[in-house]
Amino acid sequence: MNILLASTSTLYGGNYLEYLTEELKSLFQGIDEILFIPFARPGGISHEDYTAKAAEFFLKLNIKVKGLHEFEDKTSAVNSAKGYFTGGGNTFLLVKTLHELGIMNILKYNVEGGKPYLGTSAGSVIGTLNMRTTNDMPIVYPPSFECMALVPFNLNAHYLDADLTLKHNGETRETRIKEFLTQNNSKVIGLREGNWIRKINEKITVEGPESTRIFEVGKEPYEIKSGSDISNF
Amino acid sequence: MNILLASTSTLYGGNYLEYLTEELKSLFQGIDEILFIPFARPGGISHEDYTAKAAEFFLKLNIKVKGLHEFEDKTSAVNSAKGYFTGGGNTFLLVKTLHELGIMNILKYNVEGGKPYLGTSAGSVIGTLNMRTTNDMPIVYPPSFECMALVPFNLNAHYLDADLTLKHNGETRETRIKEFLTQNNSKVIGLREGNWIRKINEKITVEGPESTRIFEVGKEPYEIKSGSDISNF
Repeated sequence: MNILLASTSTLYGGNYLEYLTEELKSLFQGIDEILFIPFARPGGISHEDYTAKAAEFFLKLNIKVKGLHEFEDKTSAVNSAKGYFTGGGNTFLLVKTLHELGIMNILKYNVEGGKPYLGTSAGSVIGTLNMRTTNDMPIVYPPSFECMALVPFNLNAHYLDADLTLKHNGETRETRIKEFLTQNNSKVIGLREGNWIRKINEKITVEGPESTRIFEVGKEPYEIKSGSDISNF
Repeated sequence: MNILLASTSTLYGGNYLEYLTEELKSLFQGIDEILFIPFARPGGISHEDYTAKAAEFFLKLNIKVKGLHEFEDKTSAVNSAKGYFTGGGNTFLLVKTLHELGIMNILKYNVEGGKPYLGTSAGSVIGTLNMRTTNDMPIVYPPSFECMALVPFNLNAHYLDADLTLKHNGETRETRIKEFLTQNNSKVIGLREGNWIRKINEKITVEGPESTRIFEVGKEPYEIKSGSDISNF
């Protein structure tokens, strides 16, 4: 497999996907067109505009971008594509749409076959075991929380350390993930913004400028360094 | 109906339920025992300890507290109770448990019949139309997101204004609720900590020290004052 799952699409003060430019040249090497999956975006920006935003970035890499919403036969469009990019937005909406269109498993089959896959935020979560560690609001009811399981763990994107100055009783991110671990037995990767997960063939690593926080049943959360191998998680 | 749906159980720096003491005397007037529903709490504290915490507070009001987990026949326990308190925790776990035990509708029937109901946080969300505006992590998959619909709107508990100083690309609470409105047509009550919703007979008001933020399709979010009537929302 050849996949990149990023915590976020855009760094604070940066442009869309810009910080990933060198990694994306490597991910999509030899590919001149990819399929963009815009279904996470619930509003504010249309599927056309969202696809145009992705296309604008990939133009610099001489890669054309087509939006999956443009195709009547979406199964065929996924099977014919040379590579994929799923953008962020609302994970519940994305997972519901992919299950209802019947393309979650078709996408999985193609990516497991070696076609390159890029996800950002919600698009990264669907590469993992399931969406049970998303931060998003459950604005729609998906027929299942299961995802592609391209990697053998759960992901918390936009992982955020607790702000101890906040006078507020909402749960911290760490508390929420610990609650997940009372009901589930998979490891959770707390991926800070700026970091990404890279899988090349069978090897999986965490990359980026920040350390990454790992949560697992029966252990205190701990940090791993950029470049760490998480293939056997 | 006679219900109180609070944003939070505990104010910053305060003790459990303390800020609601006067309101709770009025809510549970003439009642000497209530049933506590501890199922939102996924870990860290057992159902026994969580119930003991509620009992400790209600002792001051001369009200006994029994935990629903103590009863083998939970339907009968709900039907026999004189009043209810559902505590906070994880809304997904709470809603899944209530649906699986078959008591969501039994509780609704009893509360609609006039028995007093107190909810805090997740326990308040289950009093509304559905759980689609919870902040919680989807750590388990409920058979449905539908709730008791004791009030005709959605609730966002622990409502938090955007922190514009934060260098982070996770969505703000307001953005998430606006995403909800692209997929749903009900109003959303953004209930800040310290505020609560009170329903007495058919009249519903928002109460507490803060103003309350209202979200609805086709309008900019707006604020309403404490005491405002939201019966016709």
